[in-house]
Amino acid sequence: MKDFDTQAAAAARNRQAELTKPPGSLGRLEELAVFMAGWQGRARPRIDRAQALVFAGNHGVCAQGVNPFPVEVTAQMVENFRNGGAAINQLCRLSGADLQVIALDLDRPTADFTQGMAMETADLVASIQTGKNAVDPQADVILLGEMGIGNSTVAAALAAATFGGGAEDWVGPGTGADDDILARKIAAVEAGLKRHKGATSAASILGSYGGREQAAICGAVIRARELGIPVILDGFICTAAAGVLVINDRNALDHCLIGHESAEPGHRRLVAVLGKTPVVGLDMRLGEGTGAAVALMVLRAALECHNGMATFAEAGIG
Amino acid sequence: MKDFDTQAAAAARNRQAELTKPPGSLGRLEELAVFMAGWQGRARPRIDRAQALVFAGNHGVCAQGVNPFPVEVTAQMVENFRNGGAAINQLCRLSGADLQVIALDLDRPTADFTQGMAMETADLVASIQTGKNAVDPQADVILLGEMGIGNSTVAAALAAATFGGGAEDWVGPGTGADDDILARKIAAVEAGLKRHKGATSAASILGSYGGREQAAICGAVIRARELGIPVILDGFICTAAAGVLVINDRNALDHCLIGHESAEPGHRRLVAVLGKTPVVGLDMRLGEGTGAAVALMVLRAALECHNGMATFAEAGIG
Repeated sequence: MKDFDTQAAAAARNRQAELTKPPGSLGRLEELAVFMAGWQGRARPRIDRAQALVFAGNHGVCAQGVNPFPVEVTAQMVENFRNGGAAINQLCRLSGADLQVIALDLDRPTADFTQGMAMETADLVASIQTGKNAVDPQADVILLGEMGIGNSTVAAALAAATFGGGAEDWVGPGTGADDDILARKIAAVEAGLKRHKGATSAASILGSYGGREQAAICGAVIRARELGIPVILDGFICTAAAGVLVINDRNALDHCLIGHESAEPGHRRLVAVLGKTPVVGLDMRLGEGTGAAVALMVLRAALECHNGMATFAEAGIG
Repeated sequence: MKDFDTQAAAAARNRQAELTKPPGSLGRLEELAVFMAGWQGRARPRIDRAQALVFAGNHGVCAQGVNPFPVEVTAQMVENFRNGGAAINQLCRLSGADLQVIALDLDRPTADFTQGMAMETADLVASIQTGKNAVDPQADVILLGEMGIGNSTVAAALAAATFGGGAEDWVGPGTGADDDILARKIAAVEAGLKRHKGATSAASILGSYGGREQAAICGAVIRARELGIPVILDGFICTAAAGVLVINDRNALDHCLIGHESAEPGHRRLVAVLGKTPVVGLDMRLGEGTGAAVALMVLRAALECHNGMATFAEAGIG
């Protein structure tokens, strides 16, 4: 496992102090440059190859009526991704990220977590491995996103199981639940928490609630860390999925940025408990990796300034 | 004066409702697409040409010791802009904006506003005209920025004179004032407010406090409105300058976005009094138009989604 290179980060910090601007005046852009330097292990971090991985899965908990859209929409949206018609396609093109969409057994949804384990161990292990395998070792940064009808309910369950609190602390409107659906989401998460209250390890929590795309996100986060590649998580669902990993190692997400603060109310809580500051806040709540792609543009802004600006000495100022 | 085209905006809003995403799930990106549609007067707004105008000026109030940097730095930074070494150069290249730097009589600073009028009427009129002339009628969006040692003190005075409140409500550390400098900034603004308390019109406020770059910003905002070109203001200084225009017309800034929420404390107050929501918040406090350039990337993200996404009907979903 590669760790943060404090020497490269210090060199980047020194460079920031010499650039033609008042110290600290680029705010978060300066922090992002130092973050990238530390995780890439070079004083002049670069993004030549940004890889966006969008994992898709289906969820048995949809039987509880937790989503206004039918389960079929997951596969239809995957097709839309492949045809270039979704928001994430436009944002990856604009931000310069290579998009890969990985559908995990969409015609075989995980089991309804209110009734039993969402996934058998073999299925969980395979999904994590799919996420690991998807990471390109040549990437300079990895963006993670997801698609899966019903998966904001799964995310709420994962967050509650990992960080405590009741269902109502983590359940939100998702992509557009009315009051009836919201009540069913809360009831489903409560039933799940009761049924799986013995699940306290990362693996047992993932197996209990699913889904495959959440497990794949964990795999990609783990693999990126092994390779020393920084990660941009998207919003609520992505953060809840990766958040499970802090059970095993409280520093497991140190190489991850949270791309945006989702409009989903549970995300603010999740971000706070993880001690993270999202890169942007644009009231988005779409998923797909869209918030991560917007954040990539900010990250590129940070690195353009870091690498392209003149120093005071070079500009003959001061 | 071109006004917001409600028909084009309504058509854009209808299109947003048909795109392959839950309604509203792109949050601010949807609002930005509708804003651009209304001001550009077309349901499919575009940014083929983004023009970034950075106005630079020098300020007599620097005699009061209100800035840690010497006045000469304004001209040195203008040279740095011309050589491509500043933050704004990197961010304009990345965001696809054509940068023009317009220095206004740097070797002839405005008069110290604690001692008298900063500018004669002829000087004020000429500076406003410079701003108007700079606007390219072919631009699809105009970014405004500024450079001028001491101009956060000028901006605080403009904001206090326009919107009321005391000097301490509007003065902040700027690009890095220590406590002594901060005290001198507050004293200078207080002295100015006392001396110019009769100045209540937009023109007399601009003439009283200056500076030329603030007047040019007002000119550019006025001209962009005449042409129906939306504007991205940068941070505290830019917003304070343009803010003067609401004295004449409370809707004068309706075609303007505020690019980012500056770390300068007075900016939050200014944004609130103008009823605006900045596009991003990255704790930046550099000026130059840097916050506007980052916001341009978000605006491009909004339009890429708006124009490039498939509708539900096109994708055969639902």
